[in-house]
Amino acid sequence: MKAKVHITLKNGVLDPQGKAVEHALHGLGFPSVGDVRQGKFIELTLAETDKAKAKSQVEAMCKALLANTVIENYTVEVMD
Amino acid sequence: MKAKVHITLKNGVLDPQGKAVEHALHGLGFPSVGDVRQGKFIELTLAETDKAKAKSQVEAMCKALLANTVIENYTVEVMD
Repeated sequence: MKAKVHITLKNGVLDPQGKAVEHALHGLGFPSVGDVRQGKFIELTLAETDKAKAKSQVEAMCKALLANTVIENYTVEVMD
Repeated sequence: MKAKVHITLKNGVLDPQGKAVEHALHGLGFPSVGDVRQGKFIELTLAETDKAKAKSQVEAMCKALLANTVIENYTVEVMD
């Protein structure tokens, strides 16, 4: 079973990396770009065959390691 | 208009960051996890109101700055 995890900064948390990308895009001729936020995207496979169990396992991984839940949100998507 | 960009390493390109995450997950009690690949996820807004134009603008940004097309793939999703 495969899972996709998106980890994004919570609203209100400063994103200097996103700001740097935004600034660079302005300089490269894309002046209309705004609100750039950069997050992480993680793909993984699991031996688990039950979709609900797989999802809860990946959520446990997010809490334990993948995301910093103080400043980050995560979403988990599980597919066959 | 909002856009979401996923930037992932091409198949066959080594992903030491993903390997490190996989190793850490094994150590944290998730032995069945494999094939961990870590990519980037970028959200941005555009002043452009035409969906097709917005998409091609974001693709130009990917080529110019966001992705290293030698080793990375990108996908662009544009929404209102």
